[in-house]
Amino acid sequence: MVESVVKPEELAYSDHERAAVYRAISERRDVRRGFMDRPLPDELLQRLLYAAHCAPSVGFMQPSRFIVVRDIAIRKAVHDIFQDARASAAANYSGQRAEQYAALKLEGILEAPQNLCIVCDTESERGHKLGRASMPETAAYSTVCAVQNLWLAARAEGVGVGWVSILDPDRLRTVLNVPDYLLPVAYLCLGYVDRFAPEPELVTAGWEKRVPLQTIVSYDTYAEGPAS
Amino acid sequence: MVESVVKPEELAYSDHERAAVYRAISERRDVRRGFMDRPLPDELLQRLLYAAHCAPSVGFMQPSRFIVVRDIAIRKAVHDIFQDARASAAANYSGQRAEQYAALKLEGILEAPQNLCIVCDTESERGHKLGRASMPETAAYSTVCAVQNLWLAARAEGVGVGWVSILDPDRLRTVLNVPDYLLPVAYLCLGYVDRFAPEPELVTAGWEKRVPLQTIVSYDTYAEGPAS
Repeated sequence: MVESVVKPEELAYSDHERAAVYRAISERRDVRRGFMDRPLPDELLQRLLYAAHCAPSVGFMQPSRFIVVRDIAIRKAVHDIFQDARASAAANYSGQRAEQYAALKLEGILEAPQNLCIVCDTESERGHKLGRASMPETAAYSTVCAVQNLWLAARAEGVGVGWVSILDPDRLRTVLNVPDYLLPVAYLCLGYVDRFAPEPELVTAGWEKRVPLQTIVSYDTYAEGPAS
Repeated sequence: MVESVVKPEELAYSDHERAAVYRAISERRDVRRGFMDRPLPDELLQRLLYAAHCAPSVGFMQPSRFIVVRDIAIRKAVHDIFQDARASAAANYSGQRAEQYAALKLEGILEAPQNLCIVCDTESERGHKLGRASMPETAAYSTVCAVQNLWLAARAEGVGVGWVSILDPDRLRTVLNVPDYLLPVAYLCLGYVDRFAPEPELVTAGWEKRVPLQTIVSYDTYAEGPAS
């Protein structure tokens, strides 16, 4: 422990800056509709990639690799993969839930002028395996941190981002020419949008309700809350 | 695609707000030293948990469960788990790399007055399995997004966060009384600190170098860069 030579508050950002960070965190949405035809300026796209690249990584291995997909033929091929996965998942629902599922808009692969696939070099020698012996999954987790950084930066830039997980990763690898040793972690649709919804779409559509925070926090040891 | 009725820039935050978001993203550090003895006010801790809880989740399943660990006996038990995992990992290094490994400070479990374990209910019925059929790992990824939200909010609050992955997850589960169906995703040390390092410690210590961003971005299909 360190004796206080600085007051801890001195390292905090100003009230305005803190509010901006919380604003991005609370206004970020998973966007699947309303993408505009206008491509993102390259400068802006590079800022978003920079934000992703600032993410923490286990052993500082920096395992994320970014594939910006603009080509419409490739986006169509990815959209085919989505449609197959969606049809196959639809078979798991029946009755009203099946109708709800059919009505959900789940991706903007063709509408968003740019997609971004982020893959992870999980077995990289970089970082010299530091921190990966007990929990090897932290390599992929590092790439997820990059996704979330990009998502928040995008919200501040007025750019919508949607994460499409209804995709067969092996078929995605084939279409994007990704070697077997790289793990597809996230496939994102990004672009300017006409609005950000005030609530998550799955709440508005009645698919799922919000979990109250206080029901999922416990102290010192795990205690099951009403939401668990 | 949507015809532009709003100008896309109108949804962007002000320059000051955008700068604050990028500031948190670029100044966030994995903090392992310099924790102060002074506990975080509960109000602040709740803001950080709120930030985590705002994270995206597949199918809006909100699978994260938070365990705030303050009890010193429990932190000591977790520290024992860390020491064993560290000793076992140390055996993988030899020569200069082994010396470097031995000199690294890798956690602040006992120094930080509060730790936070975030576990994931990966098999939860919440979200009705939406988005998890093709990529079930997205449940755990949702919890990682919560970690990164908390990490950025903490930086803006002047609070240091360090992620300890050198831990046996099963032993951690036992110590924290976490049932088998919950997956330990992240164990974090958090608290006020005397400083934030300008560079990641693993860079300063000569453990690993930074990957230049332009070497890991490709367009339309994957292309191997110098860093891959």
